[in-house]
Amino acid sequence: MPTPLRLGLAGLGTVGVGVIRMLASHSDLLSARAGRKIEMIAVSARSRTKDRGVDLSGFTFEDDPISLACRDDIDVFVELIGGEDGPAKAAVDAALNAGKHVVTANKAMLAIHGQSLAEKAERAHVELRFEAAVAGGIPVIKALTEGLAGNQISRVMGVMNGTCNYILTRMENEGVSYNEVFADAQALGYLEADPNLDVGGIDAGHKLALLSAISFGTKVNFSGVELEGIQRISITDIEQARDMGFRIKLLGVAQITGRGLEQRMQPCLVPASSALGQLENAANMVVLEGDAVGRVVLRGAGAGEGPTTSAVMSDVIDIARGFRRFTFGQPASSLKDIQAAQVSAAAAFYLRLTLKDAPGALAKITRALADAGVSIDRMRQYGHENTAAPVLMVTHKTTRAELNHALQGISDTGVTLDEPVAIRIEDV
Amino acid sequence: MPTPLRLGLAGLGTVGVGVIRMLASHSDLLSARAGRKIEMIAVSARSRTKDRGVDLSGFTFEDDPISLACRDDIDVFVELIGGEDGPAKAAVDAALNAGKHVVTANKAMLAIHGQSLAEKAERAHVELRFEAAVAGGIPVIKALTEGLAGNQISRVMGVMNGTCNYILTRMENEGVSYNEVFADAQALGYLEADPNLDVGGIDAGHKLALLSAISFGTKVNFSGVELEGIQRISITDIEQARDMGFRIKLLGVAQITGRGLEQRMQPCLVPASSALGQLENAANMVVLEGDAVGRVVLRGAGAGEGPTTSAVMSDVIDIARGFRRFTFGQPASSLKDIQAAQVSAAAAFYLRLTLKDAPGALAKITRALADAGVSIDRMRQYGHENTAAPVLMVTHKTTRAELNHALQGISDTGVTLDEPVAIRIEDV
Repeated sequence: MPTPLRLGLAGLGTVGVGVIRMLASHSDLLSARAGRKIEMIAVSARSRTKDRGVDLSGFTFEDDPISLACRDDIDVFVELIGGEDGPAKAAVDAALNAGKHVVTANKAMLAIHGQSLAEKAERAHVELRFEAAVAGGIPVIKALTEGLAGNQISRVMGVMNGTCNYILTRMENEGVSYNEVFADAQALGYLEADPNLDVGGIDAGHKLALLSAISFGTKVNFSGVELEGIQRISITDIEQARDMGFRIKLLGVAQITGRGLEQRMQPCLVPASSALGQLENAANMVVLEGDAVGRVVLRGAGAGEGPTTSAVMSDVIDIARGFRRFTFGQPASSLKDIQAAQVSAAAAFYLRLTLKDAPGALAKITRALADAGVSIDRMRQYGHENTAAPVLMVTHKTTRAELNHALQGISDTGVTLDEPVAIRIEDV
Repeated sequence: MPTPLRLGLAGLGTVGVGVIRMLASHSDLLSARAGRKIEMIAVSARSRTKDRGVDLSGFTFEDDPISLACRDDIDVFVELIGGEDGPAKAAVDAALNAGKHVVTANKAMLAIHGQSLAEKAERAHVELRFEAAVAGGIPVIKALTEGLAGNQISRVMGVMNGTCNYILTRMENEGVSYNEVFADAQALGYLEADPNLDVGGIDAGHKLALLSAISFGTKVNFSGVELEGIQRISITDIEQARDMGFRIKLLGVAQITGRGLEQRMQPCLVPASSALGQLENAANMVVLEGDAVGRVVLRGAGAGEGPTTSAVMSDVIDIARGFRRFTFGQPASSLKDIQAAQVSAAAAFYLRLTLKDAPGALAKITRALADAGVSIDRMRQYGHENTAAPVLMVTHKTTRAELNHALQGISDTGVTLDEPVAIRIEDV
């Protein structure tokens, strides 16, 4: 049997501990599959003494992840620190410079620095792998870069933030408000330290940017992702959607159109009967559309110790087997710099407006929509609550630009209270 | 760029033609992803002159697939002839003996000869790949051997014969009989030349045997698969199942229990609300359960030119990239020879009996069930059709052995017409 593959691991949070546990409990299985032993040599974390429930005594402890990354006795640097810059980025740079393979779960770092890191990895002839960065345990990076590598990919969609899906599912199933479920999610530790990473769609947007690059052979372009969070979704929206046969999901969609690379991560109405519509709680789902294969749907757990560890280990085993693949599936130098589409494909939109209880208010709204070229498919006005009258509409297909124009016109009428809520109805 | 990867292709049916088409239309994409050109050098088929709608003039034509497999100027032999023995097996043997990598879609050959072929490939230090043999375009072999390689797999389930699912779906949606839909499927060319390969569950059983080997690190054991086809499923069964919130699927289940390796490919009732229950028409679905990752569900097209070509090309690209993996995910010599479980896990069963219109018939049936230790959860008796009275039951959980004992007792009473239909209700 060849020499063992030697790992250095920085970051001993849930996933780091999971990796150490899996190496201990699955040693024979991993050796059989990888064709060689996989050994943890050294670890690094902020606290050397914290009790993490695993025995670290067999590993060298490095206080500095950069020192760990450069150790002569490791082959692979496993980065589980997180954060787009700071120690994670510094240590990954150091590892690549030192000719070490890197396995990371760090979607933020790759969404921002993916291109330069991929170039650096290629120059060093080492692997930079990130299966764990997207959709947790679902092997979607592998599916796209390898399993569907013969396909021209036409569209990628996904629900890739389990916390948002948990919040939306609970709102729907229990009829409780966003704020209430948000507070629960926070108490349960489901939210990032900065909750906006989750509920603002940023975390899921990072993942979408990585999937786009792999799918279309384009440079990672996170700043080109049209981002919108779930914070303004109300129970009213969820119930209205349900009445129309839809569910609201924080959905990512990426495709190349005549207008450029379209990447959107935003709440959408999707048919309740669709696979995406039926995705409950913290599960993740990715839908891949290829010209040969048609549509492939992958579902699984998007986070947590087990699923994320499974993904990290998949990359480690690939490296142990000697698999060598370009970071984004093809040479970094060949990734195209496609402009972000300024106008996304037309769609029907769900609108919720709150009108002042004033004569002619509705007429002013419908006039503003008509002036912007947005036509109404259906409309419903609810009983007045004090002086505020909610109005719900579904538009015919329109571009977001026309809709924004209409929303500006509506705002200018002065008859609305609050900002309107507009949710795209996605053809999935 | 490294030297091109040179292919020889035997079998110019739908998929063979698809491979030639994809190489022509996706040449740049494939080169970028594989890191080298992929070239077709020579082909072989029964007829040299048949018009297949693709230009073969650039390739050498070999009448004999064995000669093709041994050509000095090919690196990979792509076997798309089919059949468990005969020219396919002879050519694959020849290719491996000549030190060529082999990519095949031949589930029958691998289900029967997988172990010896894997050993031969390993001795020759070449790849024997078969992504296209299981679930068409769904990259499930890759998911199991690589994406989830860190997991101990506890159970694998799948609907993996699109034709059977098409027949069952149409029966359910249109209320037409098995025979009628079967005839349509045959007219549409959906069935193998020997339809029993499809409707008898054999084709899907081959696939299950391959998934088991990979999942559990066991030797392929097709003869250990408990096989049952869909031929005896009636509209009554489908309607009854629906009334109880179930759908009938030809479902494969493989797991290791204290009694050995359990592999079943048989019609089952699954909850209509489950992902498997909702699978319509010719789609395939595979459900993988790993100790770290939990449950991963993969859905896609299980057959057809595009999806199968996508899978073949995935293996070819892996080989072009230099990926080297044991045929069944670990060394052939390490695959365990686990005994087939003689007794499968207990389950509730749906039973349909047709009773003679004779006094006391039902009492005799219920007595036979009680004597075998099988208790009844619910029962329904229908209005008599001439003299035949259908009786439908759901049992409490029982083993198949006890149930068979009960069915023998029922047969011995002499009050039944036709053989009873028993369908397992699967916990998915």
